[in-house]
Amino acid sequence: MPEPAPRIAVIGGGQLARMMAQPAIALGVPLRLLAEAEGVSAAQVIPDQVVGDYRDLPTLREVTDGCAVVTFDHEHVPTEHLHALAEAGVAVRPGPEALVHAQDKGVMREAMARLGAPQPRWALVSSAEEVEAFGLPCVLKVTRGGYDGRGVWVVRTAADATDALAAARRTGVRLLAEELVPFTRELSALVVRSPSGQAAAYPVVQTTQRDGICHEVVAPAPDLDPVLAGQAQALALRVAGELGVTGVLAVELFETVVEGSPVILVNELAMRPHNTGHWSQDGAVTSQFENHLRAVLDLPLGSPAPRTPWTVMVNILGAELADVPRLYDGYPHALARDPRLRVHLYGKDLRPGRKVGHVNAYGDDLDDCLERARHAAQWFTGELGDSSE
Amino acid sequence: MPEPAPRIAVIGGGQLARMMAQPAIALGVPLRLLAEAEGVSAAQVIPDQVVGDYRDLPTLREVTDGCAVVTFDHEHVPTEHLHALAEAGVAVRPGPEALVHAQDKGVMREAMARLGAPQPRWALVSSAEEVEAFGLPCVLKVTRGGYDGRGVWVVRTAADATDALAAARRTGVRLLAEELVPFTRELSALVVRSPSGQAAAYPVVQTTQRDGICHEVVAPAPDLDPVLAGQAQALALRVAGELGVTGVLAVELFETVVEGSPVILVNELAMRPHNTGHWSQDGAVTSQFENHLRAVLDLPLGSPAPRTPWTVMVNILGAELADVPRLYDGYPHALARDPRLRVHLYGKDLRPGRKVGHVNAYGDDLDDCLERARHAAQWFTGELGDSSE
Repeated sequence: MPEPAPRIAVIGGGQLARMMAQPAIALGVPLRLLAEAEGVSAAQVIPDQVVGDYRDLPTLREVTDGCAVVTFDHEHVPTEHLHALAEAGVAVRPGPEALVHAQDKGVMREAMARLGAPQPRWALVSSAEEVEAFGLPCVLKVTRGGYDGRGVWVVRTAADATDALAAARRTGVRLLAEELVPFTRELSALVVRSPSGQAAAYPVVQTTQRDGICHEVVAPAPDLDPVLAGQAQALALRVAGELGVTGVLAVELFETVVEGSPVILVNELAMRPHNTGHWSQDGAVTSQFENHLRAVLDLPLGSPAPRTPWTVMVNILGAELADVPRLYDGYPHALARDPRLRVHLYGKDLRPGRKVGHVNAYGDDLDDCLERARHAAQWFTGELGDSSE
Repeated sequence: MPEPAPRIAVIGGGQLARMMAQPAIALGVPLRLLAEAEGVSAAQVIPDQVVGDYRDLPTLREVTDGCAVVTFDHEHVPTEHLHALAEAGVAVRPGPEALVHAQDKGVMREAMARLGAPQPRWALVSSAEEVEAFGLPCVLKVTRGGYDGRGVWVVRTAADATDALAAARRTGVRLLAEELVPFTRELSALVVRSPSGQAAAYPVVQTTQRDGICHEVVAPAPDLDPVLAGQAQALALRVAGELGVTGVLAVELFETVVEGSPVILVNELAMRPHNTGHWSQDGAVTSQFENHLRAVLDLPLGSPAPRTPWTVMVNILGAELADVPRLYDGYPHALARDPRLRVHLYGKDLRPGRKVGHVNAYGDDLDDCLERARHAAQWFTGELGDSSE
């Protein structure tokens, strides 16, 4: 008697794992979670769980025991552990050879160069002299361990590079210099690929950052040149195929103008459900979370087509406030004002700069969607006043 | 420091509780489950759980301890226990005074008569003579404890009533006789009502039964006279208000013809998310499961408007087969054939006559939706051949 369905191990108890739980319920696929601590976001909603350290191989072996597949809420599992799991017969999806491109920005830049993908001018640097030789101003990034704006420095003088160089030396990672791209906006091309090579491309979206954290997404990207949109999707599909990605691949892009024409340049890669795909939960036929699960199980992928002309996602980001409201107390106004609003909370308390949820607003009119989503997100954080009233 | 959000106790570990878990994740609202046994449908997906008997008051007290609200996967909790919980300060939603109308078909018939709701001719009976006096043919129903076609008999001769009379005597419940309505079809009017009286009405749907079990739902009901649809919604809203329902109320209706005009007659009431509302998970702005949670929390309700012209729901019902397939093995074909198909499995094995899941197909063309949903449901059960290949 076979198991009713293959079990998927998910490493990391953040909101991405939490949001995988919803389609797992629908698909009848059991998840087993490795959570960093008791009661974290995904641990609140996935019964089969182990609490432990994702850097510890015996813990990873315990969690994946009896699982057909292992996938990830984040990209921080050591590469050598992933190889060890794969050797023990667990399907690691995405696999370590692919995932390293999302873990190490230096490896990613080298791969993009090899593939001929358009990207900013870049170099690996290890001294103030090398930074100056690269050319100022520039952006410095630690090649491993940075996220949500951490581990990134905009450098205008050689002295500005001190912090970045010290951080790289302290953590023993390489430092990447990139030209400061005068981008007109940021885009994201999100695709999902299965081990057998089937791949689905979501519409290219426009993303807006706030302090290095994804803040707002508009799907599809307004007024995007259809040729450029096609290039972005084709690029993401090619990267996914060439790197052997399984599951979601998000290719974050700069849109900029070269000799009067719009072009795209690869900014970052992510290999997991991504903030720029949260709109798909309510705006697409199949959400990125469901398609991620289908991909890592090598099941046929669902349609990534939009269900509606526009979907706007705005993150609920904790603000600096004297009186931090309780998120739940934002419901009476937010839901009554907009009966079509879709709210996704992560089971986290509000803290400044912390992503605690997001809202999706969809419809025929972009301005209306923007107004509804922005109002709701600000209301929940207390930025529009005391939401507890 | 208040709790992040009020906790909801859910009594019963079936698929309705399982499907409440998805919007609870999105809303950031914690659920605590009372499951009949380890590993039942909802117990697979709700971490905070107690295994025990819903007929045992101490167990009910343990489950609801620390919960703001208690609601239900089924209607079988004894009325006196609900009163005891309410007296202990737990908000019981729906409350015992309302729920009794879904628990006891005799009480329901008396209430519908009091409200002047259109219904079949009926009488409470306790002997073969009373059944004959009522008039044959007729339908006999135990007033308590029947569901999915169990506890219902179509009686054409007085001798046919023997089983029904014996069942009623054995279980100590009253027996209800109803005229055999020559209905043209069955409809369902589903509304959601909050304690403060806000109420949302979903479009009236057409339902088809197979062996007394809901099998197929078309939303909205095709070619339904708009006046009759309005009457059905108004009736369901009035019943919800007059009986003080909180959460979902499904009013199952017969459509029949009287003196050349279509009319509706109340068949059954259910006070919980209902099989005739499963289409709303993919076809409406807000699903019945999310609106049920919002209602029992007295939060503003979400829009019940359809997102698409047609949604068809078909249940996956175990068939009588020599080789019972594994549901999961139906995925490769079902998902590849229809990338827009929405599948909902309940974590149950296939058994003849057992509801183990449902599929939703939505779109602009009704015939296309019907074909897609019926094909997929039959494929999963193995009725179209061996789905394990």
